Amino acid sequence: MSKLLDDVVGELSRLPGIGRRTALRLSLHLLRMDAEEVVRMAQSMSDFRTRIRYCARCNNLSDEELCPICSDPSRDRSVICVVEQVGDVLSIENTRQYNGLYHVLGGVISPMQGIAPSDLKIDLLLDNIARGGVREVILALGTTVEGETTLFYLTRRLEQFPDVKVSTIARGIGFGDEIEYADELTIAHALHNRTLVRRG
Amino acid sequence: MSKLLDDVVGELSRLPGIGRRTALRLSLHLLRMDAEEVVRMAQSMSDFRTRIRYCARCNNLSDEELCPICSDPSRDRSVICVVEQVGDVLSIENTRQYNGLYHVLGGVISPMQGIAPSDLKIDLLLDNIARGGVREVILALGTTVEGETTLFYLTRRLEQFPDVKVSTIARGIGFGDEIEYADELTIAHALHNRTLVRRG
Repeated sequence: MSKLLDDVVGELSRLPGIGRRTALRLSLHLLRMDAEEVVRMAQSMSDFRTRIRYCARCNNLSDEELCPICSDPSRDRSVICVVEQVGDVLSIENTRQYNGLYHVLGGVISPMQGIAPSDLKIDLLLDNIARGGVREVILALGTTVEGETTLFYLTRRLEQFPDVKVSTIARGIGFGDEIEYADELTIAHALHNRTLVRRG
Repeated sequence: MSKLLDDVVGELSRLPGIGRRTALRLSLHLLRMDAEEVVRMAQSMSDFRTRIRYCARCNNLSDEELCPICSDPSRDRSVICVVEQVGDVLSIENTRQYNGLYHVLGGVISPMQGIAPSDLKIDLLLDNIARGGVREVILALGTTVEGETTLFYLTRRLEQFPDVKVSTIARGIGFGDEIEYADELTIAHALHNRTLVRRG
């Protein structure tokens, strides 16, 4: 086998969810693309990894010191939505329903994986709130044990700002989900937090 | 969204089977890798696309003028296995059951896709055979209409070498396949070319 092919297949199969078969298919596809296109794709990967920064205010991915959201004057600076990771910001932005700022923790507290609160960008969040002007902190964390632990921990730390409202995103049955297949905790929570459709 | 992230997601989602969601997941994974690893992965993609060559003898991918198989003195030069594409060479090599040479056509005849015999490396194959020393040509093409057309065309062209044996790989029920789900043509062919287990 060609060493050049062997190398690229080996490298691509380091990516998650990409086995050697898929890596081979992708590599052979590169031959069908223009050389300039492949060079540009490769360059974008190197550039992203070596030049990307983290926003000094919210820890989101950024090309500059501040991310596009934190430096956008039209965003509502009185609300901060706290998320686990960068992908969550993108998911929420895609809904186009939120106009506040974000704060990316960079993970969740996980004793199992050795992630302590000090490993997360929590102090930066508290510093930002202490600077004033924040009315509400929305905790948009996953419903995993680690997410709930982090939620509990953050709620405690946020007690030092009694004037700031703290909320969590609603838990319930997702759109397109069958109640039959939802777990009991979710169903119980969804029942308890039911929304009034008609006041009888 | 960060332009660097936007760029890499856009570039990666040009690959087959990789949508924007997967491209985003892969991009974020790059952040968890060492920068040198990502640079090396990107470099292997550029290098592969810009430096790979086609073997002057068999049209297989190659780093040099001749591919590792054609330049391996231990391979049997009297047998040539004709395949559609590079991936087929790898699949057959993985079986470790074949020790002859290959010939990569670079596709199959397909009037629908505008691929004529002249678009394939057929003349190179005939030139190689004309140089002598070849006892058998194995046609290992797909069982598609295009594969069968190409098989028929090649068989005709190979008539100019009456001393060279021409064979095709066996058609039949694949290992792990249920007869119930095989198509009629395959079943009919498999019945007709049945293998004797015991001479009664």
